[in-house]
Amino acid sequence: MCQLLGMNANTPTDVMFSFAGLACRADEHKDGFGIAFFEGRGLRHFIDCQSARHSPVAELVKRWPIRSEIVIAHIRKATQGAVALQNTHPFVRELWGRYWVCAHNGNLEGFAPRLHAAFRPVGDTDSERAFCWLMQELAKAHAGVPTVDELSHTLRELLPLIARHGSFNLLLSNGQALWAFATTKLHSLLRQHPFGAATLADEDLSVDFAALTRPSDRVAIVATEPLTTGEAWSAFAPGEMRVFEHGVPRPQAS
Amino acid sequence: MCQLLGMNANTPTDVMFSFAGLACRADEHKDGFGIAFFEGRGLRHFIDCQSARHSPVAELVKRWPIRSEIVIAHIRKATQGAVALQNTHPFVRELWGRYWVCAHNGNLEGFAPRLHAAFRPVGDTDSERAFCWLMQELAKAHAGVPTVDELSHTLRELLPLIARHGSFNLLLSNGQALWAFATTKLHSLLRQHPFGAATLADEDLSVDFAALTRPSDRVAIVATEPLTTGEAWSAFAPGEMRVFEHGVPRPQAS
Repeated sequence: MCQLLGMNANTPTDVMFSFAGLACRADEHKDGFGIAFFEGRGLRHFIDCQSARHSPVAELVKRWPIRSEIVIAHIRKATQGAVALQNTHPFVRELWGRYWVCAHNGNLEGFAPRLHAAFRPVGDTDSERAFCWLMQELAKAHAGVPTVDELSHTLRELLPLIARHGSFNLLLSNGQALWAFATTKLHSLLRQHPFGAATLADEDLSVDFAALTRPSDRVAIVATEPLTTGEAWSAFAPGEMRVFEHGVPRPQAS
Repeated sequence: MCQLLGMNANTPTDVMFSFAGLACRADEHKDGFGIAFFEGRGLRHFIDCQSARHSPVAELVKRWPIRSEIVIAHIRKATQGAVALQNTHPFVRELWGRYWVCAHNGNLEGFAPRLHAAFRPVGDTDSERAFCWLMQELAKAHAGVPTVDELSHTLRELLPLIARHGSFNLLLSNGQALWAFATTKLHSLLRQHPFGAATLADEDLSVDFAALTRPSDRVAIVATEPLTTGEAWSAFAPGEMRVFEHGVPRPQAS
């Protein structure tokens, strides 16, 4: 299974610690990795078809503290589509003058939606197809630029339609909010004052967040499996969507 | 003035030598740089708002021989738009299931086209606005997926309309061909058998291409200013477009 990592913070924050935790799971996921960093409306997008264990791009990301409000990362174990750059998550498109980033973990069977609008897959994964369909349907559902709550409302209608076709754990962002949806496996965690220490579950690496943060900092982390021990990870229920903005879950609008 | 670099080869080729020549001109272009590498339909896209002299991303690109058929690079001196990631060239969009990459050198005054379709700028440069308009008009001009010659024909109509608004030197690619258009300054060069040696114009660095190539290799390089001495660079005429495919200029269809 692929591994997902998402981060949303209320202040530009690096993900070196979490990415190290993700990358050390890359041995069984040799089919590439990718990571996208929002800096305001701007986006850095690094992908490679090599394993995150050996990729020079992963090396750069591990060593360079890129500070970002929203990050989406993915390490890939190919289920559909060859091992090629165009099949490497996360995928990026532009809609309403913002970049949208999407990464998927799971496998969709028989998902062949009609793509009649401006979003076409470049590669041949089920994941990019689902992302293009989502962009198309979001564009159709809103005449103007929607708010985060309006987008969340539409996504709550659209995502279950894709999820009928198989396992569908998704991270999606336009730089304003981070949407996380799970059918089989996703966990999230909030880090906020008082900060404690955390140890990576798979590697002998610890960090004391209290020494690195201000009391006002808030960070939400989403990952396929809990990345750390000693922190209160919360599992998604099947079909659950969580929306994060400014480092905290956004309450569901009634 | 910004600096452009384009490469098109008939076999995956690295641009470390040419990029070194470009990056050493980055001292007067401190406002960021970017480079995009096509690998088949896939794309690697590296951008940074730091100068190519100091950026960790530029360091990676200079040291890692990424082999690609088509490359577009840009170092920026901001004329319009703040120094920010979303204003950093090259820009990327998807059209007809292919990524399109565009970098611009020049300055457009009063260019405010009606953007009514699926392509909107994320940043606030004249360059990204021009690119979005080009994508919109290309999409409108062709019902199906056009050939390289059909695209060249449409671009020969569209590009002069933008060029009315100021200086407009452009590199554009969809991974199939490299389109280069100049109103003020662009040069190109063909490297093919028998290969010789070249020395960077601005740095004490030489390379003997004969030792690194096969007789069948063909590479076209496009740059704002000739990057090397001892090679036959050819200046663009004002308003001229050149199309490169498989490392050679594509003859203009009648």
